[in-house]
Amino acid sequence: MTNANASITITAFANSPDKGEGHARDMRVRWALEEVGESYSVRLLSFDELKTSSYLVIHPFGKIPAFEQDDLVLFESGAIVQHIACKYRGLLPPDANARERAIMWLFAALNTVEPPIVEREAFMLLERDKPWFGERLNILDDNVRMRLQELSDWLGDAEWLEDSFTVGDLMMVMVVRRLEDAGQYLFDEFPTIAAYVARGEARPAYQRAFADQRAVFLDSESVSAGSE
Amino acid sequence: MTNANASITITAFANSPDKGEGHARDMRVRWALEEVGESYSVRLLSFDELKTSSYLVIHPFGKIPAFEQDDLVLFESGAIVQHIACKYRGLLPPDANARERAIMWLFAALNTVEPPIVEREAFMLLERDKPWFGERLNILDDNVRMRLQELSDWLGDAEWLEDSFTVGDLMMVMVVRRLEDAGQYLFDEFPTIAAYVARGEARPAYQRAFADQRAVFLDSESVSAGSE
Repeated sequence: MTNANASITITAFANSPDKGEGHARDMRVRWALEEVGESYSVRLLSFDELKTSSYLVIHPFGKIPAFEQDDLVLFESGAIVQHIACKYRGLLPPDANARERAIMWLFAALNTVEPPIVEREAFMLLERDKPWFGERLNILDDNVRMRLQELSDWLGDAEWLEDSFTVGDLMMVMVVRRLEDAGQYLFDEFPTIAAYVARGEARPAYQRAFADQRAVFLDSESVSAGSE
Repeated sequence: MTNANASITITAFANSPDKGEGHARDMRVRWALEEVGESYSVRLLSFDELKTSSYLVIHPFGKIPAFEQDDLVLFESGAIVQHIACKYRGLLPPDANARERAIMWLFAALNTVEPPIVEREAFMLLERDKPWFGERLNILDDNVRMRLQELSDWLGDAEWLEDSFTVGDLMMVMVVRRLEDAGQYLFDEFPTIAAYVARGEARPAYQRAFADQRAVFLDSESVSAGSE
């Protein structure tokens, strides 16, 4: 839940390029905070503001989200989500080894599954008019398929990656759902993965987080409509 | 130090494609273990063995390294290195917030800095004979340059990313040094980064880890020479 007086503040895009579809990386942090039941305030930044020296001190790569609470400042969505999972209850199981396994899946989402998905996404956005577009898209699709197949094989009939929903599932769902829309046909080839993502998106905490980030987009739309 | 009777076992390539240059991901884990002073044994695997069902149970993506100790099994080099950093002394500072910041840099290395470097590396390896090679290489070089510039600006005159050497530096050095050889000209454009990597590589723990992974390559060379 957002609350202007919360001790936690995160940064997010004032005008997200995803138009409220929940692909900007503040969504991961919002979802984590909803799962553990912590309220937070949001500082919206324009693209120009991300590259100012006052923000680069907080986030040297000039991206969103950053996280601030008391005297702790963090950037990098994986680190922020892990911090939330370790500090509050709800995203990690009680058993020590099971916690390690959950965090392992957080890293797997970010370092093994996300890179080929984001590479493909950037390619579709930036190189659609290039003569090599079709041939290279096939290569990039196959790179994504390989990871989806491995993930699908691991999941099998299971509901989540390990025995219960954890921070690892949260990040894996966030990463794989980037394929919705521009990669829908890849998604459709792996019903096990599609069902897994749908289970994640059905969680009440996800729904609340999604609605809150979407409200930012809807507000910005009405502001720009009003200024016309 | 490697020791066949150690409680920790990691997996590594029997025949690493990097020919002993320390770019395979077991090197990160070896370095971390050397920094904290824990010995380990190594299970060498052929490319075929990585894709067998008995290994995929341990590592669903069929890659190295995996980590085993008592009843804990982990994959994903970032998760393994973080586990080592949290369990043993030497890779995290004592202050709680400083620990969070160190771990934040571990995520930044893996999720913000590594992806454009690995994308460029794979492109150079697989698409060198394509008609688009030159034009795309320029794009990928610029993506890497952007991250190196931001990292260089953050480092400035500092020795490490935060007040002392941490697990975040370990992973950042490992990630950026992938540019040695095929990306040497990028490396040369950022003397701050080159000096930072050199400081990492000069650490005795790094040197021991490097020598041990190199010995695997040299052994495999002498075996194949002997079989001729």
